[in-house]
Amino acid sequence: MAKARTLTGITTTGTPHLGNYVGAIRPAIAESQRDDLDSFFFLADYHALIKCHDPKQVHQSAREIAATWLALGLDTDRTTFYRQSDVPEITELTWVLTCVCAKGLMNRAHAYKAAVQENVDNGDDPDYGITMGLFSYPILMAADILMFNANRVPVGRDQIQHLEMARDMAQRFNHLYGETFALPEAVVDDSVAVLSGLDGRKMSKSYGNTIPLFLPEKKLQKHINKIKTNLLEPGEPKDPDDSTVFEIWQAFATPEQTADMRQRFEDGIAWGEAKKALFALINEQLAPARARYEEILEDGSFLDAELKKGAEKAREQAASMLSKVRRAVGLAPFA
Amino acid sequence: MAKARTLTGITTTGTPHLGNYVGAIRPAIAESQRDDLDSFFFLADYHALIKCHDPKQVHQSAREIAATWLALGLDTDRTTFYRQSDVPEITELTWVLTCVCAKGLMNRAHAYKAAVQENVDNGDDPDYGITMGLFSYPILMAADILMFNANRVPVGRDQIQHLEMARDMAQRFNHLYGETFALPEAVVDDSVAVLSGLDGRKMSKSYGNTIPLFLPEKKLQKHINKIKTNLLEPGEPKDPDDSTVFEIWQAFATPEQTADMRQRFEDGIAWGEAKKALFALINEQLAPARARYEEILEDGSFLDAELKKGAEKAREQAASMLSKVRRAVGLAPFA
Repeated sequence: MAKARTLTGITTTGTPHLGNYVGAIRPAIAESQRDDLDSFFFLADYHALIKCHDPKQVHQSAREIAATWLALGLDTDRTTFYRQSDVPEITELTWVLTCVCAKGLMNRAHAYKAAVQENVDNGDDPDYGITMGLFSYPILMAADILMFNANRVPVGRDQIQHLEMARDMAQRFNHLYGETFALPEAVVDDSVAVLSGLDGRKMSKSYGNTIPLFLPEKKLQKHINKIKTNLLEPGEPKDPDDSTVFEIWQAFATPEQTADMRQRFEDGIAWGEAKKALFALINEQLAPARARYEEILEDGSFLDAELKKGAEKAREQAASMLSKVRRAVGLAPFA
Repeated sequence: MAKARTLTGITTTGTPHLGNYVGAIRPAIAESQRDDLDSFFFLADYHALIKCHDPKQVHQSAREIAATWLALGLDTDRTTFYRQSDVPEITELTWVLTCVCAKGLMNRAHAYKAAVQENVDNGDDPDYGITMGLFSYPILMAADILMFNANRVPVGRDQIQHLEMARDMAQRFNHLYGETFALPEAVVDDSVAVLSGLDGRKMSKSYGNTIPLFLPEKKLQKHINKIKTNLLEPGEPKDPDDSTVFEIWQAFATPEQTADMRQRFEDGIAWGEAKKALFALINEQLAPARARYEEILEDGSFLDAELKKGAEKAREQAASMLSKVRRAVGLAPFA
């Protein structure tokens, strides 16, 4: 049986945090070990340019994210792990798709419409501050997917529309120029864990409430100590289901450890003690990968070599797809 | 003194006709011989994909246009003559510029606004039938120009706005990321000759009134015979300034030949005779290039070789510019 090809892009505008790890990285790496899947992972740095005009941040984030995935054991022989900007064929396909994509399709994109609505609410010009990158980003995303005939794309609910747009462009191209692209399917996993951050809201870079994944030990402890708790004293029973400390515990613990901690909450564990236990649990699990992470970051050459290997695998496929596409639209040599 | 770099794109969606020759090709080839200019010419086939979804036509037109310029003596050692799609770096720069280009800028493009107005007048959705290619085409054009730091871009009046947009994107990029691109200047030559077609309107593919440049001799004669004239009989004086036959004559004749024909019109030359003379004049001038054209078209390998040479020259420059751009935005290697 042919393996299903699955493709995941990771936007490179931040430093990975515990929420990313639990909700995305850990399950993705686990899934990449499945024998029935052919997994592609890429650092979406062309996408990063849309939102981030700080070159240092774009660069540093890609570096940290690549090191994170490798430190956590992503197997680059088994998967194809590349930097989007190392596969410039993707921008060429983006242009070709731009020529078959109706503007009306982009007008209807949720992300664009939300930005327009915000401008209108503020009394600004509807397109105030909106770049063509934000507007046409679904075309780049379609090229990312269609280039490799990915038939299985794990996405959050907010990305389903973009997947539909990629299908739409694929169908339009196939209709105009003959069968070329496979139609991708969105795979939505609603069981994905969402972690709360220091302040109890969803852990997110935009709230400034994250616990970075590979903080040095002491800083990790300090961050965990800052998790917001209520004023219940030691000895008073605490509600585990209303506690960020417990929620994060659960994301790292075995079922037994979780049951045990639930009991300790009911028995009135002190917040300081609970946080100490949480630190110990996380720290133990992350320490080996953290050491590897720091080692990888010391010198970029391992990253470059791993990503070069991935780019070579990806470009081989991209070149073959692009040559098909070029012939289909009329860009073949003359002889 | 450094040579000014001049850049001209030729959209590949039609067969060159006498109007193209007189108005664009002949003056461009003459200009390419100037010692103070470093001329770039390219077959704009990525642009062709916007308007033409017929791969055979895109391919055939690029073939005919390339053969035309070479047959007419474009010196590919002295100039850089390439096919846009042979320089995929251009699409990569297009994406980078897409990320710095305000959507509002594209909203204001004349060509887009005209298409919207036509839809509104027809009671259609404003973006009916408009592709993202049409909408974002000024970004591709900016990449064409900025990639090579072209500082001198000959354009028609309808293209001045696009040049201003390219300047705008260059300035925005330079502001965000540091001085990178030279600001191009539009060079508008209002003295460009415009030829009338068979029916007396401007010769244009869209009117179906053209005389293709390299028609075989007999067909050229037939086309010239079809030029619309009035009903004046032989012997009756004719107004040269109200005659397509005279206008075309003037575009090919020496001043002496023109003065002579003006006299013959006043003397009442028969239309048949005037057309016969016109055919002889044009045919004599075009015959050597036509023979070369036919020879070039017989086998595409000369075209491929010439365009490969041009692409190599162009890509050397493109690679160096793109490497600068990539570093500026944060896409550099990690080591």
